[in-house]
Amino acid sequence: MLKLFHAWGSCSLASLITLEEAGADYELVTMSTKAGDQRTSEYLAVNPKGRVPALVTERGVLTETPAILAFVAQTFPAAKLAPLGDPFAFARAQAFNSYLCSTVHVAHAHRHRGYRWADDPAALAEMTRKVPEVEAACFQLIEDDMLAGPWVLGEAYSICDPYLFTLAGWLEGDGIDIARFPKVLAHSERMRSRQAVRKVLAEMAV
Amino acid sequence: MLKLFHAWGSCSLASLITLEEAGADYELVTMSTKAGDQRTSEYLAVNPKGRVPALVTERGVLTETPAILAFVAQTFPAAKLAPLGDPFAFARAQAFNSYLCSTVHVAHAHRHRGYRWADDPAALAEMTRKVPEVEAACFQLIEDDMLAGPWVLGEAYSICDPYLFTLAGWLEGDGIDIARFPKVLAHSERMRSRQAVRKVLAEMAV
Repeated sequence: MLKLFHAWGSCSLASLITLEEAGADYELVTMSTKAGDQRTSEYLAVNPKGRVPALVTERGVLTETPAILAFVAQTFPAAKLAPLGDPFAFARAQAFNSYLCSTVHVAHAHRHRGYRWADDPAALAEMTRKVPEVEAACFQLIEDDMLAGPWVLGEAYSICDPYLFTLAGWLEGDGIDIARFPKVLAHSERMRSRQAVRKVLAEMAV
Repeated sequence: MLKLFHAWGSCSLASLITLEEAGADYELVTMSTKAGDQRTSEYLAVNPKGRVPALVTERGVLTETPAILAFVAQTFPAAKLAPLGDPFAFARAQAFNSYLCSTVHVAHAHRHRGYRWADDPAALAEMTRKVPEVEAACFQLIEDDMLAGPWVLGEAYSICDPYLFTLAGWLEGDGIDIARFPKVLAHSERMRSRQAVRKVLAEMAV
């Protein structure tokens, strides 16, 4: 059985929603990144990067959200979570998710995790200050050029949607009004109407 | 015909090598990021992100290195550049490339492109100062846990290899002695013996 190491508030929400969408049988291990659960020797043996998500499969551990999402889509093809038979369309999905992990998530991380790239408190404060500007620019690009609508890739829901929903959920906390991006806002509302998302968000509220 | 927008010294080298490995028929457009070619209105019409690489296909433009590499592997299956028939092995390849784009490339980018995340010159200097420490930690993880050898995924060459080769090529300029990572060093030397890599590096030298 699959086992997902997950933390509320982290990007692992995208993997959790996708496992639900796939109808996968999985065990959920909820961790607290604030408590430092991801730094324990026990967890580092699972994922030496000390990050979530990690998906334990019968063949080994997978990390990195774009890889986990594509794996779930490929392993549960009946759920139709990615355009698996079309290399170009699949690459567009991968490009979207790659942008989220390499640019949008990184923009957000400079708010509270600037220590990854600087030690000086003044530099950390400067990074935090600039986050709303940098992250809003990312979402403006998504709004203008990347979100086809109604779902990210167009008519078909895909593994891009829970990932965008997850990162869009960070906007308010980062001081950015999601209403500046009407398509992103409508997308998030559309996501909340899905059964899999409702189930996961209900678990979060417990 | 495929058209690759590329800049020497950038991560687009991985896509260029992969097109060569695939035996693809492609046109190469060489840009200068120092000259700001990626910010021209002409290029922004191709890739609104203003970054390289961009791969123009007959169906549209693809961006983001992990997506381009997987697309080439899927489009030229005879070249055997990824474990296409095995979702778990493919996910391991994707996870490796995702780590390179979201963590290793980002670590490097704080040296000269800290302006993406801060304005204050003192903060930019602080980011630059920390780059060798952050980037070396990434390569230590690659050395210890991620590079199976002789190729990234093990016995079979894949789309992970030119990407690692590309980023390892930045170590020296970032003040890190690649000899600290013997497996990474041996991998880079192994890469240089490949015909496709020799051809590309010869073009760079022109």
